[in-house]
Amino acid sequence: MTYRVFNFAPGPAMLPAPVMARVREQFLDFRGLGVSIVEISHRSREFEALLAETDVLLRELMGLPAQYHVLYCHGGAAMQFAAVPLNLMGRVPSRSADYFDTGNFAARAIEEGRRYGTVNVVASSADTGHDRIPHHDAADLNPDAAYVYIASNNTIYGTQWHRFPETNDVPLVSDATSDILSRVIDITRFGVVFAGVQKNLGSAGMAVVIVREDLIGHAAPHTPNLLNYQTYFKDHSLTNTPNTFSIYTTQLTLEWLSEQGGVAAIEQVNRKKADRLYGVIDHSGFYRGFAQPEHRSISNVTFGLPTAGLLARFLEEAGDNGLYALKGHRALGGVRASIYNAMPLEGVEALAGFMEEFERRNG
Amino acid sequence: MTYRVFNFAPGPAMLPAPVMARVREQFLDFRGLGVSIVEISHRSREFEALLAETDVLLRELMGLPAQYHVLYCHGGAAMQFAAVPLNLMGRVPSRSADYFDTGNFAARAIEEGRRYGTVNVVASSADTGHDRIPHHDAADLNPDAAYVYIASNNTIYGTQWHRFPETNDVPLVSDATSDILSRVIDITRFGVVFAGVQKNLGSAGMAVVIVREDLIGHAAPHTPNLLNYQTYFKDHSLTNTPNTFSIYTTQLTLEWLSEQGGVAAIEQVNRKKADRLYGVIDHSGFYRGFAQPEHRSISNVTFGLPTAGLLARFLEEAGDNGLYALKGHRALGGVRASIYNAMPLEGVEALAGFMEEFERRNG
Repeated sequence: MTYRVFNFAPGPAMLPAPVMARVREQFLDFRGLGVSIVEISHRSREFEALLAETDVLLRELMGLPAQYHVLYCHGGAAMQFAAVPLNLMGRVPSRSADYFDTGNFAARAIEEGRRYGTVNVVASSADTGHDRIPHHDAADLNPDAAYVYIASNNTIYGTQWHRFPETNDVPLVSDATSDILSRVIDITRFGVVFAGVQKNLGSAGMAVVIVREDLIGHAAPHTPNLLNYQTYFKDHSLTNTPNTFSIYTTQLTLEWLSEQGGVAAIEQVNRKKADRLYGVIDHSGFYRGFAQPEHRSISNVTFGLPTAGLLARFLEEAGDNGLYALKGHRALGGVRASIYNAMPLEGVEALAGFMEEFERRNG
Repeated sequence: MTYRVFNFAPGPAMLPAPVMARVREQFLDFRGLGVSIVEISHRSREFEALLAETDVLLRELMGLPAQYHVLYCHGGAAMQFAAVPLNLMGRVPSRSADYFDTGNFAARAIEEGRRYGTVNVVASSADTGHDRIPHHDAADLNPDAAYVYIASNNTIYGTQWHRFPETNDVPLVSDATSDILSRVIDITRFGVVFAGVQKNLGSAGMAVVIVREDLIGHAAPHTPNLLNYQTYFKDHSLTNTPNTFSIYTTQLTLEWLSEQGGVAAIEQVNRKKADRLYGVIDHSGFYRGFAQPEHRSISNVTFGLPTAGLLARFLEEAGDNGLYALKGHRALGGVRASIYNAMPLEGVEALAGFMEEFERRNG
């Protein structure tokens, strides 16, 4: 596979090059039907087969036990900011939940959670600008909470949970949008893991929600039908027309991941990619890594340059060198390299080489 | 354009052949970026330009006055079954709304509406199997209702509103999923017109919502952020990652429609297509049209055959002749030909010819 451009966009992000080639090749003729995947009914035999294949692949890759179900939900991760409290808050009399504030998306989940119950912010990284996963004592967690909520990787700041909080009988809920399938996790530690698909799975506009069976069926009465986990569960996510193209691209990406050897294999590649970039940062007196080393993300590498002028020049020259979309989020500035599963080692190598060369010329 | 297959699927439905060719052609390289439309940030300059173009095209094609806004909402039309009452019910002290029950999707909207207020079913076509738009007297409408709700075209049954109810100061809300942009409407008759995109606009998983400005900002407190019209309005539908591929395919379809001469021009073609099929039905003692003639849809033509055996043979032979997805909805059976904007006259001609020939052999 030859790349014209290495795409470091944070999401929507690059999809595996063979997946993209496949979509293009099949675009006018899905599985010999003579029509496109975007032109067939979600109730057709062919689409139902595709959905079933997606399920099987995801279950295998994540090692899901039978009591975990996969839902394909409308609206991306941000819709889950409401769906999670709507489905889970009512499980406990107090209607309260524990949240960790580790950045922008966690904060939005907190704000939305407050609409539906009492949100207790257990710990926040706000006072250090979200450069780390904040410390907490097990005693800070409410044993009667409906759930404990984390964002397992913080896309904007480049921090990541490496040891998940011990929540005992309280279900742990994770927004894994930016690290789902990038590393092995023990799903039995979680009650719900959800992810907007646009980083590690497929085209945007949908969330994959993995939910433990006992957490289904407790939605508040005012829950919109299409935010209710029970609805998706009983209709196998076909209550109404789903985002069929997203499911299709997800299926292809999962197939590709399986061919790469699965999650454990890609995790090794991902760690190598992250190590290469953090290595450049740590051996440099020029680049400044943003995240505290022990909380660094393997999905998003964030760093600054000495001056605004150098940053602008870095981004411009990177673009000229086919290194696309490295500009940091407006909340943080600097550079952000998003290196999800689809980013090949050679892309990271190209960026690392460029960084070293840019430092030599400007450092 | 040569067609291998004519696709009569009810939705997801065929998109214009030139649009499909364009998507395929640009799929690996959107506007010279070297990356795909599905791989770029929704906050990139390029995507924001695409969204702005989509707006301009839609406003022009529908002739939207300044007080109407276009929102690109997650979840398709069925999500609007909740969004409409959540956004509008609270405008009146009675929290009530008037609904017309004209089939499956209207019934689902009624069920969802009941979650959020009092739903008054003004008239129903259920007692005649939804073969018509039911009669109502103007006096049946509640002048204090929050809104009056209709489904302007009933995809499953093949019926369509040809004269909209007179609602005076009460906003008229229309689910136009299966006839948006297929005929000229006077938008000023409506408070809200929404449509899932997967029939006349683009790839599935999104709804276009056209809403009059004074109806924005009245959402109930428990409205999920991503069902609140105010959210989409203030963030120009970019609160979170939208269904970017759907917006892209919508933009291309609108461009195509504009090249066809716009809505008035395509309406003429659509009427010609529908007349051709209804003509075959009316001149036949073999096919039985389902919808009452004065309520026939120009989007979906529904009819039955004398026996189940003949129906099965019809569908099989049609498939062998490249006429795809003609099977009626399970609620009604029979044949349904969905002939949205993208279906060319030659596709309808091929179907009409097949129907005549099949009748000669089997009638």
